[in-house]
Amino acid sequence: MSEKNEHLVIFQPSGSRGHIEDGMTIVDASRRLGVELESVCGGQATCGKCKVRIEDGVFEKLGIESSMDHLSPIEEREKKFFEKHTELEGYRLSCVTEIHGDVLIFVPEESRKGKQVVRKAATDRKIDVNPAVRNYYVELTPATLEDTTGDWERLTEALEQEHGIKGLSIDYVALLSLQSAVRKGDWKVTVSVWMDKEVVAVYPGLVEKSYGLAVDVGTTTVAGYLCELSSGKLLATDSMMNPQVTFGEDVMSRITYAMTNEDGLKRMNDAIISGLNRLAGQVAAQAGIKRRDIVDWTIVGNTAMHHIYMNIYPEYIGKAPFPPALHAGFDVKARDMGLKISPGAYVHALPIEAGFVGADNVGVLIAEEPYNRDDLMLIIDIGTNGELVLGNKEKLISSSCATGPAFEGAHIKHGMRAAPGAIEKVEIDPETKEPRYKVIGKEQWSDELKEMGSRGICGSGIIDVVAQMYVAGLMLKNGRMKKELDHPRMREGEDGWEYVLAWADETSIGQDITVGQQDIRAVQLAKGAMYAGAKLMMRRLGIERLDRVILAGAFGSYIDPKQAMIMGLFPDCDLKKVYAVGNAAGDGARIALLNVDKRKEANKYARQVEYVELTVEGDFEKQFAQAMYFPHMRDKFPHLKGFIPDSDTE
Amino acid sequence: MSEKNEHLVIFQPSGSRGHIEDGMTIVDASRRLGVELESVCGGQATCGKCKVRIEDGVFEKLGIESSMDHLSPIEEREKKFFEKHTELEGYRLSCVTEIHGDVLIFVPEESRKGKQVVRKAATDRKIDVNPAVRNYYVELTPATLEDTTGDWERLTEALEQEHGIKGLSIDYVALLSLQSAVRKGDWKVTVSVWMDKEVVAVYPGLVEKSYGLAVDVGTTTVAGYLCELSSGKLLATDSMMNPQVTFGEDVMSRITYAMTNEDGLKRMNDAIISGLNRLAGQVAAQAGIKRRDIVDWTIVGNTAMHHIYMNIYPEYIGKAPFPPALHAGFDVKARDMGLKISPGAYVHALPIEAGFVGADNVGVLIAEEPYNRDDLMLIIDIGTNGELVLGNKEKLISSSCATGPAFEGAHIKHGMRAAPGAIEKVEIDPETKEPRYKVIGKEQWSDELKEMGSRGICGSGIIDVVAQMYVAGLMLKNGRMKKELDHPRMREGEDGWEYVLAWADETSIGQDITVGQQDIRAVQLAKGAMYAGAKLMMRRLGIERLDRVILAGAFGSYIDPKQAMIMGLFPDCDLKKVYAVGNAAGDGARIALLNVDKRKEANKYARQVEYVELTVEGDFEKQFAQAMYFPHMRDKFPHLKGFIPDSDTE
Repeated sequence: MSEKNEHLVIFQPSGSRGHIEDGMTIVDASRRLGVELESVCGGQATCGKCKVRIEDGVFEKLGIESSMDHLSPIEEREKKFFEKHTELEGYRLSCVTEIHGDVLIFVPEESRKGKQVVRKAATDRKIDVNPAVRNYYVELTPATLEDTTGDWERLTEALEQEHGIKGLSIDYVALLSLQSAVRKGDWKVTVSVWMDKEVVAVYPGLVEKSYGLAVDVGTTTVAGYLCELSSGKLLATDSMMNPQVTFGEDVMSRITYAMTNEDGLKRMNDAIISGLNRLAGQVAAQAGIKRRDIVDWTIVGNTAMHHIYMNIYPEYIGKAPFPPALHAGFDVKARDMGLKISPGAYVHALPIEAGFVGADNVGVLIAEEPYNRDDLMLIIDIGTNGELVLGNKEKLISSSCATGPAFEGAHIKHGMRAAPGAIEKVEIDPETKEPRYKVIGKEQWSDELKEMGSRGICGSGIIDVVAQMYVAGLMLKNGRMKKELDHPRMREGEDGWEYVLAWADETSIGQDITVGQQDIRAVQLAKGAMYAGAKLMMRRLGIERLDRVILAGAFGSYIDPKQAMIMGLFPDCDLKKVYAVGNAAGDGARIALLNVDKRKEANKYARQVEYVELTVEGDFEKQFAQAMYFPHMRDKFPHLKGFIPDSDTE
Repeated sequence: MSEKNEHLVIFQPSGSRGHIEDGMTIVDASRRLGVELESVCGGQATCGKCKVRIEDGVFEKLGIESSMDHLSPIEEREKKFFEKHTELEGYRLSCVTEIHGDVLIFVPEESRKGKQVVRKAATDRKIDVNPAVRNYYVELTPATLEDTTGDWERLTEALEQEHGIKGLSIDYVALLSLQSAVRKGDWKVTVSVWMDKEVVAVYPGLVEKSYGLAVDVGTTTVAGYLCELSSGKLLATDSMMNPQVTFGEDVMSRITYAMTNEDGLKRMNDAIISGLNRLAGQVAAQAGIKRRDIVDWTIVGNTAMHHIYMNIYPEYIGKAPFPPALHAGFDVKARDMGLKISPGAYVHALPIEAGFVGADNVGVLIAEEPYNRDDLMLIIDIGTNGELVLGNKEKLISSSCATGPAFEGAHIKHGMRAAPGAIEKVEIDPETKEPRYKVIGKEQWSDELKEMGSRGICGSGIIDVVAQMYVAGLMLKNGRMKKELDHPRMREGEDGWEYVLAWADETSIGQDITVGQQDIRAVQLAKGAMYAGAKLMMRRLGIERLDRVILAGAFGSYIDPKQAMIMGLFPDCDLKKVYAVGNAAGDGARIALLNVDKRKEANKYARQVEYVELTVEGDFEKQFAQAMYFPHMRDKFPHLKGFIPDSDTE
């Protein structure tokens, strides 16, 4: 127990941290630090909604030594709750637990108030249904002393006769349940058959529906889509934070974690696998089925996520020349990965293109099919890591660039994830330099409502505000804020020059929400990397103009294409041909779940797309520097005529 | 702690039991009850050779409530030993542990003095070598920034170019080790490929040899044969008691155990799997390799053993109409069965024919190939369960009969397993009625040496003594002993009339070794079942005479064919055409390990052999009753002319 009067408290995954006075409850500390925790019973320690996990150990990077012992002892009513929930070892109830020392607190998804807006909702796409797993029903002739043929041989004969399927094998675990299922169903059974090759599940009687799960493992957000396989119908969607965020915010920091900690890979793999099991349970519950009813699973993620969820040591994708362990799509028994669905089920891990262009990008590829198109298309997948695909049916190349988490709200003073209270849209009047903005969870704009309850700025808001500051003349083309402007919203703050986007009384945090010079620099680095990447790829293909720009990634849907082009996220293009396609990676996973032909297509094109490593281009640094300008140091944007200074358009 | 002055002590797996006075050490009790325990340090509690496991709990069938608490407390020197061997929880050292209550003691294989003679030695057979797993060596081009192709794609391209193998997949666990193996071997690797389909292991550098294990799981004895796969060379053989003997001596009692105990199957499966892991470790150690170097495994056993080692609930093979879960040969990942060899390796479980004709019989089938022969052959596999195959290339039928464990020495007053001290051969002079016998472990016969150190009679000895008693006129054709004979060796004993085979002073147990009327009845039941089975099968095929009789089963090799025919174990046949083929089941497993074509053959003929259920034949009881006579009530044995009364030969 610490003797200090104040203790360092860090909440994960938000990363909110601060010093809290001795004896304060966790729930009060969470309010103080702007972390919102659920609470239903009002501090009675009965509902368990405010449960949090206490991380034990020394966390050097975070500068904290956290311990369960730094809290008040478990009291009687809390003990009662945990006796009923023995799976929650290492958890405490925030409402009754007092802080008496430094602690690192993990807030599980279900304890978070105002859950992150599911920005990975499934897009409405027409998908041809041809699933890998199909159900077949058969009636068997019971065994007699005259015909003692074994159950499996009896079943395969019936399947061949009634459904014409030959040469089947059966999963070992499915085999173990065969005889009891046959007898429970009075010699009538349904089997789930994978790829017309292997019986992966046996059920007594007639079972018409079968279920599959498509999962998109983003560096930050994981989304799951539960589908009924015979109809292709989407039954449930849910998302959660990637539980690996405690090990590092971006891909490189996670690879480093695996390389510098003896059990680093195991810990991150355990985290994502148990997260995926939780997610599967959540969507199953939403759809009113059991987790073990799920008989197929597809999964996408960038190459690092792919290696970590596959439990492949990611060392070699973390250092030049970055070869992955494999590119090909891979079928693995869910049980071998530790995924607790139908025990005989396979997981199909979609292929990856290269060290930094992963299975998520392949998902985008099979969803958008640039390999079937004539027009030259640039697909930008904006996440913590940016991925680019350029080309058409003649040739496709891909690349990746380290955008950093700026667009996810990180490394931005008032940045936050897309959750209620986040400023998501911004306009600045070029004359008055006054802003108006919209907040997630409110219908009105800030000029119609005084108390907006804003808490910070999310990615789309950051793009808007930076683009608008440039258009309104609050900063120069090179990103330097105009200190000389005499305006009440322009001022010298703690961290340098800043623009006040929201006054304290419009917020729920009791302080002004600002955009400062450092924030603009972070955005410039991110957008500059993306733009330079696109430009170098165009040069590689020898093309001057883009016919089409597709914004993929969950976040892409919320970006205003015009604002993004104004700040120079990508080269000039007809604005009518710039649009978002939602979480195309997740859609790709869902498409592959419902249609085996698309799995083959994924394998084929993943290998045809040529990966180009941009950082080895001789003038990468120069291109990058020029692309940090708004919208670019030299390039013209004819399609933005009227929106930005004429010098930038012609 | 019991207050009695005497305590019930039972040793497993031998089943030896008796009352021991309070305070005696386990090692002394073992000597008293004829159980021989290893001891190297002479009671210093240092060598650990005399370690035994104490079974805790109420064992209703055995009539004992056993507990670790019924022993003297662990003393200091014993504690030191177990501190170094934490895996030996539940064990005690016999030399220093005193008995103060009823205990059930399991003597592990390695603590047994005078290990059971390996009666499952491999037979010298010519086997065409065409293994399922082959090693391939390739040199890869290292990855560069210009060629970042993944390791798996690089490997498959090299395998195709250098060895012409296409369309390979890779085991999930093998994949996880791929990148480190490639780098450890400096881009030179060897892969083990299963069935030209799947890479199951990856090693750095050049590895020429690969290893496979063939296992025969008998109801009583388990034998393992370790082979080098490319040459087919047999490197090591070892055997052990089937650890399931603690759950029941024969097949039916084990099936019953599974059905009447909630975790019965799990306990028996755990027992055999950990036994198999131990066996694999032993043969690996003998050959100087590691257990994880084993990349292929074949396994045979009767249907009940097959179901239990596969972890399939054996309920339905235990009750009419006895259909098995499956007949077909089955490839399953060793890790899915809990077998700790190369993590990507498969186990090939050989097919079974029917509910009571198992994979062991299929082993005999592919070893003896009756389906390729003209002469009518009867194959008898004598174990705790008897299995019969009859026919030739025209048609083959099979059956099984419950012989019981009489031939294994059980249910015979002085019966014992084939171990040093067991009487294995007997001759009785028809004139003097005096016997001479031979004991395992001694060169001389009993008429050359007084102190034979005999301890009991094993199966081959039992067959001999019964046949010889009939020939010498000590009993009638119906098995009744001639009480009216006045001979010092014929007397009324505790359990009825008996013949003294060895006087107490020739033995190491200090008492006469006898063969009584009850022993003869047990042998009659066993041999009668076997004979009746063979006869009914001959009738089914419409044949009168056997061209050939093959004695399979480990035990078969030790039987004197003439004595066996004299007592009527099978119908008349030219004695020159009656011979033993050793452990043909084990040989079959080894053949299937070394030649994948024989696996296909096994699958084909296992299904072609027609199983006949003999107990449903209308006159089975009558046939059985007639077959209990010596050699048979009515059948003639012309080939035994001169050896038995003429009335039986013509």
